[in-house]
Amino acid sequence: MSKEADLEYPVINPVADRWSPYGFSEEPVSTDDLRSLLEAARWAPSSYNEQPWRYIVATRSNTQQYDAVLSCLAEPNQQWAKAAAVLMLGVISRQFEKNGKPNKAAEHDLGLASANLSAEATQRGLFVHQMIGIDPEKAREVFAIPEGYEALTGLAVGHRANPDTLPDALRERDEAPRQRKAQSEFVFGGKFGEAL
Amino acid sequence: MSKEADLEYPVINPVADRWSPYGFSEEPVSTDDLRSLLEAARWAPSSYNEQPWRYIVATRSNTQQYDAVLSCLAEPNQQWAKAAAVLMLGVISRQFEKNGKPNKAAEHDLGLASANLSAEATQRGLFVHQMIGIDPEKAREVFAIPEGYEALTGLAVGHRANPDTLPDALRERDEAPRQRKAQSEFVFGGKFGEAL
Repeated sequence: MSKEADLEYPVINPVADRWSPYGFSEEPVSTDDLRSLLEAARWAPSSYNEQPWRYIVATRSNTQQYDAVLSCLAEPNQQWAKAAAVLMLGVISRQFEKNGKPNKAAEHDLGLASANLSAEATQRGLFVHQMIGIDPEKAREVFAIPEGYEALTGLAVGHRANPDTLPDALRERDEAPRQRKAQSEFVFGGKFGEAL
Repeated sequence: MSKEADLEYPVINPVADRWSPYGFSEEPVSTDDLRSLLEAARWAPSSYNEQPWRYIVATRSNTQQYDAVLSCLAEPNQQWAKAAAVLMLGVISRQFEKNGKPNKAAEHDLGLASANLSAEATQRGLFVHQMIGIDPEKAREVFAIPEGYEALTGLAVGHRANPDTLPDALRERDEAPRQRKAQSEFVFGGKFGEAL
């Protein structure tokens, strides 16, 4: 089995080797690793350096917090994410702190931070599977998220499971090759749609 | 002068060494480098593997395309971005291709892709400065961006300028230390706002 990216051009390993497993093992993530993942998020760029990202983090050893984060994921995601050593919610601040104006880049900039987090995880042999399928209003209630902030994503973080230990449906997803559009389909050099 | 990140925890160089200069030199970016930056974007994760990102790319050697992208940036950004060897617009697809339903993750997932692009650039000694300050309607007109797609960001890509060659205002911005919130301000381990 290979999940190697079918590269058109060479890229760094933290990008090339990253993929989103459905099968996680319960092996813990060390505090050092977890803090470095969040540190990578910390140094992402953001519009006006607003840093609109917040992460609500739960490790399996804190059962109450873990179950609270798990309960905010969409039910189909809970089924596989409940095996991960760490669960997080990615939360955005919708307004600029200094003047209360809407931050048009908030969702985008959470993506910048979470991509850094994933690159750091990949380099450390860890895996991240992000989810848009969460319940933001439940998260608001469970974690007392104030007005102006909103949970946007879930993140499962941990070690991969041995595929042989997974139910067939998850194993098949984890064994499927990674697929992407060709560069010619998303990199344009003239009008929109004209390949570079 | 040092722009070294003041790290609380160690992170990989493509994250630690990345920052967004205002001063770009006109030194070209090789085609190999440019294609690898876009390849890194290509392998980002996305909701349902939709890959909602598109990039409109212009190198300085193609004056017409370069000036067209430049004209879509907000005026204050044009002032410094016009020195960069490569300009891009980051465009999102707002609906899923297969069923036309809204993609709630589109902006976020463009962020994931552009962070990968920036990490690859950093590893190659190149710099990226992203902008939310663009004119999406002008971009729609200039590049014939169809309904359902929307330009969200601009990206200046290239080599740094020697700071001594920059006007004072830009040099001061590029020499200022990089600052971030502490992890305790955005990493929560209980309710929202409670540090992990």
